[in-house]
Amino acid sequence: MNIQRNTAILLMHCPDQQGILAAVTEFINQNKGNIVYLDQHVDYEQNVFFMRTEFDLTNFLIPRDKIKEYFNTLFAERYQMEFSLYFGDQKPRMALFVSKMSHCLFDILARYTSGELDVDIPLIISNHEDLRWVADKFGIEYHVFNITKENKEEQEAKEMALMKEKGVTFIVLARYMQVISEKMIAEYPNKIINIHHSFLPAFIGAKPYHAAYARGVKIIGATGHYVTTELDAGPIIEQDVARVNHKDTVQSFIHKGQDLEKIVLSRAVEKHVERKVLVYQNKTVVFN
Amino acid sequence: MNIQRNTAILLMHCPDQQGILAAVTEFINQNKGNIVYLDQHVDYEQNVFFMRTEFDLTNFLIPRDKIKEYFNTLFAERYQMEFSLYFGDQKPRMALFVSKMSHCLFDILARYTSGELDVDIPLIISNHEDLRWVADKFGIEYHVFNITKENKEEQEAKEMALMKEKGVTFIVLARYMQVISEKMIAEYPNKIINIHHSFLPAFIGAKPYHAAYARGVKIIGATGHYVTTELDAGPIIEQDVARVNHKDTVQSFIHKGQDLEKIVLSRAVEKHVERKVLVYQNKTVVFN
Amino acid sequence: MNIQRNTAILLMHCPDQQGILAAVTEFINQNKGNIVYLDQHVDYEQNVFFMRTEFDLTNFLIPRDKIKEYFNTLFAERYQMEFSLYFGDQKPRMALFVSKMSHCLFDILARYTSGELDVDIPLIISNHEDLRWVADKFGIEYHVFNITKENKEEQEAKEMALMKEKGVTFIVLARYMQVISEKMIAEYPNKIINIHHSFLPAFIGAKPYHAAYARGVKIIGATGHYVTTELDAGPIIEQDVARVNHKDTVQSFIHKGQDLEKIVLSRAVEKHVERKVLVYQNKTVVFN
Amino acid sequence: MNIQRNTAILLMHCPDQQGILAAVTEFINQNKGNIVYLDQHVDYEQNVFFMRTEFDLTNFLIPRDKIKEYFNTLFAERYQMEFSLYFGDQKPRMALFVSKMSHCLFDILARYTSGELDVDIPLIISNHEDLRWVADKFGIEYHVFNITKENKEEQEAKEMALMKEKGVTFIVLARYMQVISEKMIAEYPNKIINIHHSFLPAFIGAKPYHAAYARGVKIIGATGHYVTTELDAGPIIEQDVARVNHKDTVQSFIHKGQDLEKIVLSRAVEKHVERKVLVYQNKTVVFN
Repeated sequence: MNIQRNTAILLMHCPDQQGILAAVTEFINQNKGNIVYLDQHVDYEQNVFFMRTEFDLTNFLIPRDKIKEYFNTLFAERYQMEFSLYFGDQKPRMALFVSKMSHCLFDILARYTSGELDVDIPLIISNHEDLRWVADKFGIEYHVFNITKENKEEQEAKEMALMKEKGVTFIVLARYMQVISEKMIAEYPNKIINIHHSFLPAFIGAKPYHAAYARGVKIIGATGHYVTTELDAGPIIEQDVARVNHKDTVQSFIHKGQDLEKIVLSRAVEKHVERKVLVYQNKTVVFN
Repeated sequence: MNIQRNTAILLMHCPDQQGILAAVTEFINQNKGNIVYLDQHVDYEQNVFFMRTEFDLTNFLIPRDKIKEYFNTLFAERYQMEFSLYFGDQKPRMALFVSKMSHCLFDILARYTSGELDVDIPLIISNHEDLRWVADKFGIEYHVFNITKENKEEQEAKEMALMKEKGVTFIVLARYMQVISEKMIAEYPNKIINIHHSFLPAFIGAKPYHAAYARGVKIIGATGHYVTTELDAGPIIEQDVARVNHKDTVQSFIHKGQDLEKIVLSRAVEKHVERKVLVYQNKTVVFN
Repeated sequence: MNIQRNTAILLMHCPDQQGILAAVTEFINQNKGNIVYLDQHVDYEQNVFFMRTEFDLTNFLIPRDKIKEYFNTLFAERYQMEFSLYFGDQKPRMALFVSKMSHCLFDILARYTSGELDVDIPLIISNHEDLRWVADKFGIEYHVFNITKENKEEQEAKEMALMKEKGVTFIVLARYMQVISEKMIAEYPNKIINIHHSFLPAFIGAKPYHAAYARGVKIIGATGHYVTTELDAGPIIEQDVARVNHKDTVQSFIHKGQDLEKIVLSRAVEKHVERKVLVYQNKTVVFN
Repeated sequence: MNIQRNTAILLMHCPDQQGILAAVTEFINQNKGNIVYLDQHVDYEQNVFFMRTEFDLTNFLIPRDKIKEYFNTLFAERYQMEFSLYFGDQKPRMALFVSKMSHCLFDILARYTSGELDVDIPLIISNHEDLRWVADKFGIEYHVFNITKENKEEQEAKEMALMKEKGVTFIVLARYMQVISEKMIAEYPNKIINIHHSFLPAFIGAKPYHAAYARGVKIIGATGHYVTTELDAGPIIEQDVARVNHKDTVQSFIHKGQDLEKIVLSRAVEKHVERKVLVYQNKTVVFN
């Protein structure tokens, strides 16, 4: 929603030193880019400078296809900067992975079809037929790859081929009940978003609501995070919680939790889509 | 604050069966007790019935010192009921354990001296001299028992003797940085309240804010719980959380967390003091 | 979700007096109804007793079609009790009113089609064509009644006739941007649920996010309430809030608010559908 | 806590235009100031640029007593900038105003005496004797000025004279139950912080908990704001909320609300003390 059309979005981090912010903003200003958004953050402990800026390209003197090169030459090497450059008119392309539960799927598709979420969703992938009817309602391709211990590698290879064909740029696991293998994670580094139905790092793994109920917690949570090779341990993008009490059951934990899950996942997806998430050492900087 | 003076407070649980609630309330009504509070809860999974009721004794036909016996005879055996009976005019007597941080101590003492918390606090126990000045401000005895691996058993024995002498009925660990030994826990079962500075069961043990920061969580928490022999695993009474983001540091986690800790601990203490907490199988029923 | 099939649900209130709870539960027990849920509340200020109970009818000795009469005779008159009796197998029938925004509509329809919300939705009514495509996706009748100052009374009469024909038992205004007239409110007393996009009673009326932004609040909210003849002043069923800060704009208030609105509205609808809301003097008792 | 000793803190706003941020940071860098904190915000609607920066003065080339003049000459006029300059070693001096309730007073004094709040509190002013014992506990001067309609102007004049004598730089109304007159507000513009016991703008004026209870809200709140001449309508610094339900009474609203009030007020005071609040058109920018 907030992505301006004719803009460039720069996400970067580098060792902090005097004058970086000034140098970058001056560079944009001098070349007649109009900064429409700038947020920066300094981690004084690690001594790292993070920045996200979005600037209008209408009068920008450097041709669009040269910006990356210029940035690389002028800043990346000098400041040991790592950066990503996006353009406001390039829509991210999402593959949605689901299993049997529909609440997150519905929430994302409702935002998508109403224009709230500025992405393309070329396909939905599942290990079950159960949610094909939802995909059909929204007119989106639905591909089933049943997964067993034996065929997992092979099936994931097919999924990746299909996603490549469809130009998928990131993956959303909308309560997809399968562990993603290292190969796919390597193919989509910090580009696979999962919703875990607990307040991580509490209740890692399967059946977190049952575990939370058994522990007698007074608050439950949900966590949207990037998938890494360590289970439920990737960089956290967003979390939220809800109160429970002794009157709640495992079933009502699950029920209350589903509202958390869908909102937290959608918020995490939105931040990713808006290029507002920067990962550094297994943690995220999430710009406003 | 809510404790009525001339009342009896009954906390009970038993296997659920038809007619218990009716039987108990009828018993109170027929003997001219006036119910001023009643809350009940049925755990349909475990099939257990829980109840808290508070009734005015002004016209109650059974003498105060016989109520327990009558209850035992008429209900406890018949329904396999476990119950506790308290009287509104018996103030719980708290021993406060502290180490070096003052925020929880101040919060409890402010509530106590302003009359908000209906207890007696005959003494403060610490393993350090640091907070004697706070105790002095509020005119409360401050006893230091320095604890080492070698003297721990001996020192705790002295603490227990002192608490017995002072008529202590429950203990509050207001950021007391020592593990309580099994002996003292056995002496005060479900009567030692601790504040843990994380959203349990995440970040059990020492330095939870550092661990939370390292994990990159977006929400921090605090947990008030009864102490059992397993570290940070006792029945949870109250939890609360606060948002953090990438701009926060370990220091700001600690700073924000202190507000959580003191409020959560005070709420847990208040519920305990009002006899509104019932422990069953390492979980709590906390009545309104 | 929680509604048991072969059960009766009793919602009641009456002046508080000794023995009511015992009398009602005894009556159910003696007639071999099995209480599967009971929650009660006493307002000691107004001296009113409120109760919701749900009991299994499998072995109940009183025929289903006589229960109401018996209750009336045995309790309602004696205790000046007002009560409603529902059966777990009677699904409430909802008319959904919408205008142009789809987020609440999608949320309710997703819950409905996935079986989470135990209702029938025979029709959607709107003053605009805009959301017909959503209704079509979900295969629900969509009726447009355009409303002008001149035709309002006439159009609402038609709407009411249509709803009567469809057996509608309650109405949900899912961001329906029209004031409902007194006639329709009288026809559906405490049976029209509205979502207001502010934390009532702040920002009554039109454009509450703009007003909230102008006031510089740090928290925004949404309110689910029953519609009465006084604008935005009916009994509140549910509220929730979200933090905002100086970086937010009116647009981001609206965006964040939409998540609040849909969750709050759906929770309010769910409580209503489960017969867990009792209205008394423009306030609600909402049972767990 | 976060205020660095040998630093300058610059708070500023001006019409937004290209290059401001670069100009200011370059100015600091070129003169060998080391930026330890920088946060900026652009209001694209009003086209205003806001910034807070804190820079170490150890090697700064401009003498401390000339910085303001240089800033004025180089930036303020050129950019129509309004700015405030503070130094990290200048402690704000607070006058605390109280009436009869002690919870906010205790909270602030506990933070103050434990070193958490980096201020001086030379005096407490009250219209009643009630809280003198608290001031005595903490060894702070306590001055009573009883206020009547007749003597108000005269008494406030004396209060202002006393505060001037004591070098007071800002005022905190810690549940002070008197309206402050225009004269005193003019003397301390955006320097008087009040805690209002509701979620403003709901329930302006007296007895907000009673009004909230009568309205049947499901959430209560508290608001920390600067005092302006319009009652409860000044710029909001901080708000927070807590859930209530039908079991709550006016008394429990008040009780739960007191925890909100003290935490919200202390957070607002802390932000002010850290020079992190910037007022613009009756709204605040509150930097992290």
